[in-house]
Amino acid sequence: MNSKEMGLKEIIDGIRPVDTQWIEKAKERTTQLVMPTRALGQLHDISERLCGIQKTLKPSINRKAVIVMAGDHGAVADGVSAYPQEITGAMVQTFLSGGAGINVISRYVGADVWVVDMGIIPDLDPGSLKGGNQFLVRKIAKGTANLVKGPAMTREDAENSILTGFELASELFEKGVDILGTGDMGIGNTTPAAAIGAVITHTSLEEMVGRGAGVDDEGLIRKRAAIRQGIEINQPDPTDGIDVLSKVGGFEIGGIAGCVLAGAYHSHSVVIDGFISTAGALIAETLCKNVTGYLFAGHRSAESGHHAMLAHLGLNPILDLGMRLGEGTGGALAMGIIDTAVQILTDVLTFKEAGVPDKEP
Amino acid sequence: MNSKEMGLKEIIDGIRPVDTQWIEKAKERTTQLVMPTRALGQLHDISERLCGIQKTLKPSINRKAVIVMAGDHGAVADGVSAYPQEITGAMVQTFLSGGAGINVISRYVGADVWVVDMGIIPDLDPGSLKGGNQFLVRKIAKGTANLVKGPAMTREDAENSILTGFELASELFEKGVDILGTGDMGIGNTTPAAAIGAVITHTSLEEMVGRGAGVDDEGLIRKRAAIRQGIEINQPDPTDGIDVLSKVGGFEIGGIAGCVLAGAYHSHSVVIDGFISTAGALIAETLCKNVTGYLFAGHRSAESGHHAMLAHLGLNPILDLGMRLGEGTGGALAMGIIDTAVQILTDVLTFKEAGVPDKEP
Repeated sequence: MNSKEMGLKEIIDGIRPVDTQWIEKAKERTTQLVMPTRALGQLHDISERLCGIQKTLKPSINRKAVIVMAGDHGAVADGVSAYPQEITGAMVQTFLSGGAGINVISRYVGADVWVVDMGIIPDLDPGSLKGGNQFLVRKIAKGTANLVKGPAMTREDAENSILTGFELASELFEKGVDILGTGDMGIGNTTPAAAIGAVITHTSLEEMVGRGAGVDDEGLIRKRAAIRQGIEINQPDPTDGIDVLSKVGGFEIGGIAGCVLAGAYHSHSVVIDGFISTAGALIAETLCKNVTGYLFAGHRSAESGHHAMLAHLGLNPILDLGMRLGEGTGGALAMGIIDTAVQILTDVLTFKEAGVPDKEP
Repeated sequence: MNSKEMGLKEIIDGIRPVDTQWIEKAKERTTQLVMPTRALGQLHDISERLCGIQKTLKPSINRKAVIVMAGDHGAVADGVSAYPQEITGAMVQTFLSGGAGINVISRYVGADVWVVDMGIIPDLDPGSLKGGNQFLVRKIAKGTANLVKGPAMTREDAENSILTGFELASELFEKGVDILGTGDMGIGNTTPAAAIGAVITHTSLEEMVGRGAGVDDEGLIRKRAAIRQGIEINQPDPTDGIDVLSKVGGFEIGGIAGCVLAGAYHSHSVVIDGFISTAGALIAETLCKNVTGYLFAGHRSAESGHHAMLAHLGLNPILDLGMRLGEGTGGALAMGIIDTAVQILTDVLTFKEAGVPDKEP
């Protein structure tokens, strides 16, 4: 066992299940709120789970952050994407300029946006970029190898990408961030995400592989064929997330898996976004089942296979708006709902406080 | 034709369809945003329709209000509700004190809350109530008659309740409110709402009638029987919303129908909440088909028949969180999503502005 594996083992050993006693205490408060029993549905589930995560009846999610993990993908050579590879770096710069979808939504919910070069092809210099102080370069390599031909990365790089995500998210939590959203940017990354989803959830490629950012019918056939070949050549072990990540994954997906582990390790909630982030969560969940208690699924993506991923994790998405952008947008948008859910629990009067008689006996 | 009918006729004649040219212009801008085509799904539909409603590419929804219409119901005598009738007045006072679900959610999205006595049994004096400056007394009567035995109200009172809602909402729009949420409070009011839904959408009582605030199995049987009898005795005409409202409706439902008409008349958007508000929208839609273009369905209620009501109106709900509180909570919560949708359209850079190449040709 090398030092990276030690690191991961320590992290996994340090993760505890969410505190069910605090969830029960929160449920008791919910029944006292001046409304019919549990009349706000999923909002109660959200706030009660936050109480379990933070071990309090007054959970704080004031400080919010979104971390957008960026990486490039060798599989783009097989024509799996509708957009050219240069877009990855160009969008990283757009995030830093504040003009992308994730920036607009994050401003609305009051979340800071951090962008990480986990392994994009261009070398972007934070010092020379507008907004570069929100840009962290942790490049594992200049894009993955083509998973269609062999492993996307070495096992060591896979572990490294997870530990990098863990370290960055841990720093944010230690600086006072209460809730973290995960996001992604990487042209071609619905291909590794679908491969991960198919392998870990044992779902067919027909169901798991969708059009991503918008491939046409021929592109979809190419994409399914590429993923089928990548899985056949690499034979990833579905019970070993590091093996799956190294063979058919991506650096940004590993980084997201690390963020998920960090949330659980530090008892903070993490809001995953759509298809790519959920692939990262699947990797993390193979390493430690307890992570799901700390996760909120921001939304159900329009990408066809996302449903099967969420079902595997047992997560009920907060939003279902036909979104499929990535960047962390679905998770960030859901933070507004999570915020409101907490305020319902803490700020709505009880029947007693309001002087309203409860249900007829 | 008496003066009330004149009033309604003038209103209906003054309602224009939403401007499709502005929707098309907005769609053109959406395609230029630096993201895959329409990658934010329903958020684009929302913002584009707002452009059509307000005839601009920069719709404003800065000033938000929620109007909570309250009324009591004679049908409570038939054991259709799990809660005692006194709760209606007690909850009105809770809304004014700022401690109910609708207050908490409205504060989060920045909406003012107005509460209207459309016809509750107690006489509450705004001057002597905490928060009474947000309370408007427009009592049509002290609760409806029991729809199980005969008409819930006269045709004149039905028209009056609609015109009252129209007038109050019109005042808010004239004072600068950009977007209005409708809410309701009235113990027993899922009974008239289900009756309206069943009659207008031609849906069976098995599908349309649910547990409301929480009747048990026996209560549900009583409730279905009461509604069946009410419809049989009254024979409401499904093509005439005023007839339906007068025979099996409620004063707060009429008020909400008036708000819906006011939004369309003044070219402002109205966000309806769940089961009760949608019954109000159904009444308005029988009077003028064009109102639906101005409506947003805040959420899909957990109440079983809501789905059929929304389908009849052709509205796609924004949220689906298993909520069933009423008060306007689902509509208010959705205002945060609507706000973000507008900001996506106006604030995300175009491909050109961001210097990002678009899809490969």
